[in-house]
Amino acid sequence: MFAHNKRLQYTVRVSQTNPGLANLLLEQFGGPQGELAAATRYFTQALGELDPGRKDMLMDIATEELSHLEVIGTLVAMLNKGAKGRLAEAAEEEAEIYRSITGAGNDSHLTQLLYGGGPALTNSAGYLWTAGYIDTIGEPTADLRSNIAAEARAKIIYERLINATDDPGVKEALGFLMTREVAHQLSFEKALYAITPNFPPGKLPAMPEFERVYFDLSQDSEGEEDAPEGAWNSDENFTVVADREAQHAVDGGDGLAEVRLDREE
Amino acid sequence: MFAHNKRLQYTVRVSQTNPGLANLLLEQFGGPQGELAAATRYFTQALGELDPGRKDMLMDIATEELSHLEVIGTLVAMLNKGAKGRLAEAAEEEAEIYRSITGAGNDSHLTQLLYGGGPALTNSAGYLWTAGYIDTIGEPTADLRSNIAAEARAKIIYERLINATDDPGVKEALGFLMTREVAHQLSFEKALYAITPNFPPGKLPAMPEFERVYFDLSQDSEGEEDAPEGAWNSDENFTVVADREAQHAVDGGDGLAEVRLDREE
Amino acid sequence: MFAHNKRLQYTVRVSQTNPGLANLLLEQFGGPQGELAAATRYFTQALGELDPGRKDMLMDIATEELSHLEVIGTLVAMLNKGAKGRLAEAAEEEAEIYRSITGAGNDSHLTQLLYGGGPALTNSAGYLWTAGYIDTIGEPTADLRSNIAAEARAKIIYERLINATDDPGVKEALGFLMTREVAHQLSFEKALYAITPNFPPGKLPAMPEFERVYFDLSQDSEGEEDAPEGAWNSDENFTVVADREAQHAVDGGDGLAEVRLDREE
Amino acid sequence: MFAHNKRLQYTVRVSQTNPGLANLLLEQFGGPQGELAAATRYFTQALGELDPGRKDMLMDIATEELSHLEVIGTLVAMLNKGAKGRLAEAAEEEAEIYRSITGAGNDSHLTQLLYGGGPALTNSAGYLWTAGYIDTIGEPTADLRSNIAAEARAKIIYERLINATDDPGVKEALGFLMTREVAHQLSFEKALYAITPNFPPGKLPAMPEFERVYFDLSQDSEGEEDAPEGAWNSDENFTVVADREAQHAVDGGDGLAEVRLDREE
Amino acid sequence: MFAHNKRLQYTVRVSQTNPGLANLLLEQFGGPQGELAAATRYFTQALGELDPGRKDMLMDIATEELSHLEVIGTLVAMLNKGAKGRLAEAAEEEAEIYRSITGAGNDSHLTQLLYGGGPALTNSAGYLWTAGYIDTIGEPTADLRSNIAAEARAKIIYERLINATDDPGVKEALGFLMTREVAHQLSFEKALYAITPNFPPGKLPAMPEFERVYFDLSQDSEGEEDAPEGAWNSDENFTVVADREAQHAVDGGDGLAEVRLDREE
Amino acid sequence: MFAHNKRLQYTVRVSQTNPGLANLLLEQFGGPQGELAAATRYFTQALGELDPGRKDMLMDIATEELSHLEVIGTLVAMLNKGAKGRLAEAAEEEAEIYRSITGAGNDSHLTQLLYGGGPALTNSAGYLWTAGYIDTIGEPTADLRSNIAAEARAKIIYERLINATDDPGVKEALGFLMTREVAHQLSFEKALYAITPNFPPGKLPAMPEFERVYFDLSQDSEGEEDAPEGAWNSDENFTVVADREAQHAVDGGDGLAEVRLDREE
Ligand SMILES: [Ca+2]
Ligand SMILES: [Ca+2]
Ligand SMILES: [Ca+2]
Ligand SMILES: [Ca+2]
Ligand SMILES: [Ca+2]
Ligand SMILES: [Ca+2]
Repeated sequence: MFAHNKRLQYTVRVSQTNPGLANLLLEQFGGPQGELAAATRYFTQALGELDPGRKDMLMDIATEELSHLEVIGTLVAMLNKGAKGRLAEAAEEEAEIYRSITGAGNDSHLTQLLYGGGPALTNSAGYLWTAGYIDTIGEPTADLRSNIAAEARAKIIYERLINATDDPGVKEALGFLMTREVAHQLSFEKALYAITPNFPPGKLPAMPEFERVYFDLSQDSEGEEDAPEGAWNSDENFTVVADREAQHAVDGGDGLAEVRLDREE
Repeated sequence: MFAHNKRLQYTVRVSQTNPGLANLLLEQFGGPQGELAAATRYFTQALGELDPGRKDMLMDIATEELSHLEVIGTLVAMLNKGAKGRLAEAAEEEAEIYRSITGAGNDSHLTQLLYGGGPALTNSAGYLWTAGYIDTIGEPTADLRSNIAAEARAKIIYERLINATDDPGVKEALGFLMTREVAHQLSFEKALYAITPNFPPGKLPAMPEFERVYFDLSQDSEGEEDAPEGAWNSDENFTVVADREAQHAVDGGDGLAEVRLDREE
Repeated sequence: MFAHNKRLQYTVRVSQTNPGLANLLLEQFGGPQGELAAATRYFTQALGELDPGRKDMLMDIATEELSHLEVIGTLVAMLNKGAKGRLAEAAEEEAEIYRSITGAGNDSHLTQLLYGGGPALTNSAGYLWTAGYIDTIGEPTADLRSNIAAEARAKIIYERLINATDDPGVKEALGFLMTREVAHQLSFEKALYAITPNFPPGKLPAMPEFERVYFDLSQDSEGEEDAPEGAWNSDENFTVVADREAQHAVDGGDGLAEVRLDREE
Repeated sequence: MFAHNKRLQYTVRVSQTNPGLANLLLEQFGGPQGELAAATRYFTQALGELDPGRKDMLMDIATEELSHLEVIGTLVAMLNKGAKGRLAEAAEEEAEIYRSITGAGNDSHLTQLLYGGGPALTNSAGYLWTAGYIDTIGEPTADLRSNIAAEARAKIIYERLINATDDPGVKEALGFLMTREVAHQLSFEKALYAITPNFPPGKLPAMPEFERVYFDLSQDSEGEEDAPEGAWNSDENFTVVADREAQHAVDGGDGLAEVRLDREE
Repeated sequence: MFAHNKRLQYTVRVSQTNPGLANLLLEQFGGPQGELAAATRYFTQALGELDPGRKDMLMDIATEELSHLEVIGTLVAMLNKGAKGRLAEAAEEEAEIYRSITGAGNDSHLTQLLYGGGPALTNSAGYLWTAGYIDTIGEPTADLRSNIAAEARAKIIYERLINATDDPGVKEALGFLMTREVAHQLSFEKALYAITPNFPPGKLPAMPEFERVYFDLSQDSEGEEDAPEGAWNSDENFTVVADREAQHAVDGGDGLAEVRLDREE
Repeated sequence: MFAHNKRLQYTVRVSQTNPGLANLLLEQFGGPQGELAAATRYFTQALGELDPGRKDMLMDIATEELSHLEVIGTLVAMLNKGAKGRLAEAAEEEAEIYRSITGAGNDSHLTQLLYGGGPALTNSAGYLWTAGYIDTIGEPTADLRSNIAAEARAKIIYERLINATDDPGVKEALGFLMTREVAHQLSFEKALYAITPNFPPGKLPAMPEFERVYFDLSQDSEGEEDAPEGAWNSDENFTVVADREAQHAVDGGDGLAEVRLDREE
């Protein structure tokens, strides 16, 4: 079970309120690459995992992501602290309130109007968080790859946010959160490599005649390919099929569909 | 631009109609790990990609995934072919129709009632496809990892579907589709490794003091950890922080949050 | 920040696997009245709350709801434990697997096929969890009422689930979770009553001429009302307006809409 | 069945067009606390309710909320009246149209571009209305609490909107709508109190040993609690459990999970 | 504004309870082609419409669709009447309740478990109603065509439901609702034809050189087309472009993309 | 199956980058009336269609819509080309980056922050594409009407976008896409008229006594109708029922609902 300590994992020091920036930060609170997605991704995997070592790792990291969710949500709350009271208190003229919430550089209408300045489970465009962001399927060699990718994405989003603020306390806290995504990515990679074999994932073998074929389906008008070759289609692993006629009905059949119907059908 | 050839990439031969199985196959038509998600994931990356070689690869594979979407959708249509006419034609007694669409082993109400037996952009539970499944963020070292993970997941779902049918033609077509996911995973891996450095993704450096730390946040009641160690926390790369008191306010601050308010705030 | 202890808040003892029941229990894992909704509802309120006492209460209860999410998710995982391996291992004939996952009394296709038997962030119909379930608006006299209502709803859903299983260990764990909803409802009620005044919520006064009026808008054909009166429309607090003509344009205007346009408009 | 009278429940007088304000008002048209949510919440409850008195009340109020939806939608239409024609008529230079729909203080792109200036079933951020906002579960002691909370939330959102406009006609119409939420809240409270007992909701009794316990799960670093006590945890009703060790496995078991598997599993 | 009369538009006579059928009928309560979608589609158009005659027609029909929503919701409530009490009252053994709600022919878990047997704003698969179903764009020549199509779809869904029940009272009520869709379709068609010209919709002219061209993009392997010609590509209105090379870069350019960048970009 | 040619269907020439305009164009990339919706609508219909001529037409047009999706996505990518690098490269001061992404006339936070400037499957407000936009039901006389309406809507949205930009290359490409919607609408109309009879859609006859009735449900306060009559209610096809009493229980029953319960119910 969980316990909560009132000290954050990382101290939050915000120089001044900035609801527009608060709104951008929602991306990592309730957005697809954000901390709720991370925490629930690993938490659901931990519950379904049978291997005790991986289960522990998943729960360790899920718990940290929940603590990150608290840090980013606290940043949002601090950045909105001044704005929070305005609508509620009507401390200003109506026209002034209208200008302040709809002005350039402040896209946080939703945060203030609907959520009263509290951190909301939406991305920076107000899209409500959905479990469609979670790609857990209950098979470690797939799920660990999903986790590696998720950490890579989260790292980049933090990087973009850091580049968009010059508040040193915000930069520092975001830098910590970004760093931890790197650490988690590394752990997940090591957990994946600890499973052998891990490629291809699963039990069923691939059909050998189609496993190392590269279909060159996007071509120039002349039916040629002048894009530079890459490791993804040019090395000893791949047979490139560029002839249009050889690309369909690759089983040698007629490429059509049929079903046997009962008499009554 | 796209062109369409009436021959499928792989010939579809279905032994007998089976709307319940059709419904399961929707998972790979309009489900989160399905072919529409794959096609749109790579297609959107191709449009935003500046490197001509990767752009070509992404469009080659996106085009193939669209062709897979056609194969799986055709399987669904064939499996529903007998059922399609029933409600429309009312060829049977009402009570019989009701039994046939709600009976055990047939979960395809939605397919028949709402979509008339055509393949629908839903998963096997009738959840409408959403772009929330697409995790493209426009940075190759992250997106390629997302693609690798997506192919691994799709491979597993195909494997589960293959294990749930004994129709040889369906098994064979699903086996082809499964195989191609393996081939694509391999191409994406090679494309990722062709970018150096690719770890950590992005430009900003991690904070060195937190990059190789493992926080042991899930512990036994005694504050200990008896789960087996793994590569993810035990090797030379990681400093494990297990002491509860050392886990919060790791910056050395008070772990609290503050913001400087203007006088008027 | 959060810490995790490997002991659950309540011991989980399941008599036998039952994926159909597991599927029903998802209602309280990833459903609208479930534990993720509860945890995130109170957690987001805690982050935005300025009053230290209420903030502490919200975080105390949010942390407990996360621990309940773990209990209900663990119940799901235990109930699916036998089924988990079937598809992955293909330990049975395909036809048998198909029957076992689509048979009467087992509605857990999604759980097994898509999530591999792990607990998924969906309700019992496979609908993905959405932050649309969270009704936090950042004003305590409204949010506490939302919390009271949410606990009442969760109590009822647990009651319905308890009535649908005869597994004593499952019943007991669900009984504990149900009981805690009652305790939380009580705390939220006391927190609401500790704010005075708390009705009407907010700062702006109601218009006195319309505050205690009851519009009898649903009537019999004869323009009368033969439904029994209730405290909601009959006591000294309410003036009932039953005359159809007196029900519209209650401001005394013409009941139409107008706007002044600029010349150029 | 319903009938419609062309006079609004409250006359709408708008001083001048203002698409930015129209966009904010969408919050109460197609937003989570808005009038469509209110109308459908009570309407679905009315259809499922067996008690004739409550059924009548629910339908009376549902009908009024539909009439409010018409008032708020008409406000939006009036505020957009000038803007509606611009794109359609192309009455201005393209650059001017672009500036007018994307300029500061005007967040109504969607309203104009996608909906042509008509009121749309979205919140102020363009999020499409979803039935996930509706929390009806078909049990009066829960549903009435949900209704009370919903009215409290709607009252607050109207208050925030009133504080953001200085158009007297808009303020007055919003003031009427806000007032009616207060009246409805009162009716629902009286209807709830007319059911005895109404706490705890439902039939199954709580487990007495856990019903009045307060788990102090969020604590200071020293394992103490220096937040002010409140009625929610300090009075005769609650036993506070603050000792970390006493917080898990509260049933006295080992806090672990087990399931009995069949031999073949 | 709206008023409500307690008599339904059509009398509802149900022979016996049938929660499985109730669940199918949800398709027209909270499904994409259902009555809530119809009512809100026409209601939002009515609010935004400036022409008084069309505005009246839209509100007339919107009001009728609301009354249909009441009829279909009442059918659901009657069909669920017996089942409603079971879980709540626990009038049966738990195992019996479990069997009754999960058995073959009864797909109404969600209705009973989550909504307590009341009609829910979901389709028959439990997917929550979303405003994404509403395609209003605020331009009559487009919206009327959307309405015509919506009525055609609703007619078909009613037809399928009628074919799936032999309860004479249910068939009769559904037959009435189906009939009214036909009547509405006719009204919308006449309203569309009353606008001249109505094709193409809108103000901007099409480019004449591409307006009557049919691109034959799906062909046989031989680059030919052996599908039967139809009015859609063969009459005097269309120039068919079948040559693959003539299908791209139809403007005569290079078919590539370019943008002029600022120096700093 | 599909093939891809690297030349676009229409050459894209963008004068200068403009992320705000890119954001508006997303409406036709990932919005409800956009090209992905069009392509998947016709593609799913093609897969389920049995008539070879219509199937061919649907696949021809679906393939063209995919090619349009490529054109509009390429326009977005070109318009974002300058902005793409800013956050990633951090080529500017943070404050400048913040201003540039949140300033007036630039609503593309999401595009840049979350998607890195690539085209995203969202509408212009950041709402994720959903299959709820697709209204295919598998019956040609309904689906073709849906297609006609969809093309009409798409034509209007393109028109509005053309009116909002003065970049000649963007205008021209949008004009081509708009023109093709007109051509497709014409093909679908001809395909519908080629089916006889096509009204009413489906097989079941309407009830003659209710098929040509117009219920005047929205009236003035005096129970009269002073809106101008229209073809939709005034010609020989319609009997107008204006008397309120004659509008309910039109079957001649009591307008109430009943169900026969089993003894045990
Ligand atoms: Ca290629
Ligand atoms: Ca650990
Ligand atoms: Ca009444
Ligand atoms: Ca505490
Ligand atoms: Ca063709
Ligand atoms: Ca009328």
